[in-house]
Amino acid sequence: MKSDVDKILQGNQLAAARLIRLLEDGDPEGIQGLKAIYPYTGNALILGITGPPGAGKSTLLTHVITEFRKRNLRVGVVAVDPSSPISGGALLGDRLRMRQHTEDKGVFIRSMATRGHLGGLSKTTNETVLVLDAMGSDVIVIETVGVGQDEVDVAEAVHTTAVVSLPGMGDEIQAMKAGLLEIADIFVVNKADKPGVDDVVDQLRLMLDMRNEPDNQWKPPILKTIAVNGEGVTELVDAFMAHRSYLVESGNFDKCNVEREFQFFRNLVMEMAAGKIFDAMADLPAYNDLLANLKARKVDPYTAAETLTKGIECKI
Amino acid sequence: MKSDVDKILQGNQLAAARLIRLLEDGDPEGIQGLKAIYPYTGNALILGITGPPGAGKSTLLTHVITEFRKRNLRVGVVAVDPSSPISGGALLGDRLRMRQHTEDKGVFIRSMATRGHLGGLSKTTNETVLVLDAMGSDVIVIETVGVGQDEVDVAEAVHTTAVVSLPGMGDEIQAMKAGLLEIADIFVVNKADKPGVDDVVDQLRLMLDMRNEPDNQWKPPILKTIAVNGEGVTELVDAFMAHRSYLVESGNFDKCNVEREFQFFRNLVMEMAAGKIFDAMADLPAYNDLLANLKARKVDPYTAAETLTKGIECKI
Repeated sequence: MKSDVDKILQGNQLAAARLIRLLEDGDPEGIQGLKAIYPYTGNALILGITGPPGAGKSTLLTHVITEFRKRNLRVGVVAVDPSSPISGGALLGDRLRMRQHTEDKGVFIRSMATRGHLGGLSKTTNETVLVLDAMGSDVIVIETVGVGQDEVDVAEAVHTTAVVSLPGMGDEIQAMKAGLLEIADIFVVNKADKPGVDDVVDQLRLMLDMRNEPDNQWKPPILKTIAVNGEGVTELVDAFMAHRSYLVESGNFDKCNVEREFQFFRNLVMEMAAGKIFDAMADLPAYNDLLANLKARKVDPYTAAETLTKGIECKI
Repeated sequence: MKSDVDKILQGNQLAAARLIRLLEDGDPEGIQGLKAIYPYTGNALILGITGPPGAGKSTLLTHVITEFRKRNLRVGVVAVDPSSPISGGALLGDRLRMRQHTEDKGVFIRSMATRGHLGGLSKTTNETVLVLDAMGSDVIVIETVGVGQDEVDVAEAVHTTAVVSLPGMGDEIQAMKAGLLEIADIFVVNKADKPGVDDVVDQLRLMLDMRNEPDNQWKPPILKTIAVNGEGVTELVDAFMAHRSYLVESGNFDKCNVEREFQFFRNLVMEMAAGKIFDAMADLPAYNDLLANLKARKVDPYTAAETLTKGIECKI
């Protein structure tokens, strides 16, 4: 493992993939590896690209990667959308398009297909991001479908979120309003050659006007792209870099890192604490009585959990 | 609140909606209400209908509700899919179709649009199901989009999962394979009037053959439906009831309830334990040193969480 850590810090993709797999499996060796690489993380710009299935996120992403590479930046990609071609799903054409990047040593793509049987999607994604960061990625892009709460949690942990919509999505935008739109730093209207593109842009602008941010805050731009031929991608990458400058200057870049790590820490505390409690209880008759009552619906889960956690004491 | 509990047990929808809202807000009064209704729960058959956006789940669901009502069963619905017309999204036509049910006292529909800012989707859904159960629902249907881990968690907690696919979905089925197909008790191929329906059925059958279950186990049927005109819905509801009989006879009905409640209990323990720990720590200098080191990346989240949870002691 020791030598694997050195290899990861030198950008070795095989060693990185091995560590990610250990972490996905909840292997203690993986946690040792993560601890070892941790001091070398915290440098990458973490981007989220999210939007409904069919918005063309993956095609857009391949062009975004190409543009980052042109600017000589190393790119890590975490694909969280299970319907994403990057995760091994859909269209052959898309997969072929991604292949150009898989042979590029400056691009490391990882799919979260084996999602969260041990601690949920956000934990696995978080750990993967740390590995990509330690490898020396300048930019890490997380592609999510933006539907589940997990995906929203992931999006909230990134520096910059681009929300992709497409023409003819009027009603869906209404549905997205509640959750996704509020976390957007950049709006992308993809398939901008399709009719109705200006309607979507107008709707988004209207919603933005209602957000009514203070003057010194970031104003999310609304960009049009045509992912299939790469139109608008340069401007999108410019917007990512502009947002990065804004974050660094306002102190929000580090603040976002600290918040993400604290959230990760908090989740680990929850998990470890519960593990300790259930281990300590396992053989106690009182605990087994409690379980029997829970099973017989003689006690409700809230009261049972209160009973169990009442006796917790902790010192540091 | 006391009188609200009585009203809920009598099936009063307004009182039920009030309790659900309190629970969504994490209001202690909500938890009191849940404790009071809890002894009256555990009777409903809980169904999950899941599948990708655009598969026609909501239209199918309106017909399924009608069929349950014909059989004189009271129905509760929890719509978890944010793109669902039931959640207030999409097409007017669908919303109108649902309206026929909103005036029926035997149907109570609740959307999880305000998802999970306090404890995640599965918690809120679980609590809502308990309220619908206490109201006397014979059947509770949870509609999910089946994309995120949260949705899979929800689906795992139901008695019966119907996975909806549609013709022309070959590649998507491949992508679904890993997660959704394994949890399906019933397969529905909707839009069965569209070309390619038999290809999907064949693919599903092939996958089922590979599952290779023991003889005494439930064999998931593959049903064709045309949601827009209700074709195949009677057979689908028959399949739901057949699966219910199988579950009851095999003892799996109660086992599933126990597992769901234990999972709910476990999550509550995690949350409460972490709350207690962080409260106890808040003013300790050693804890604040730990946080400062975490912030400065001098300690990694794993080591910090281990340090914090090392001193936990619990008795019951």
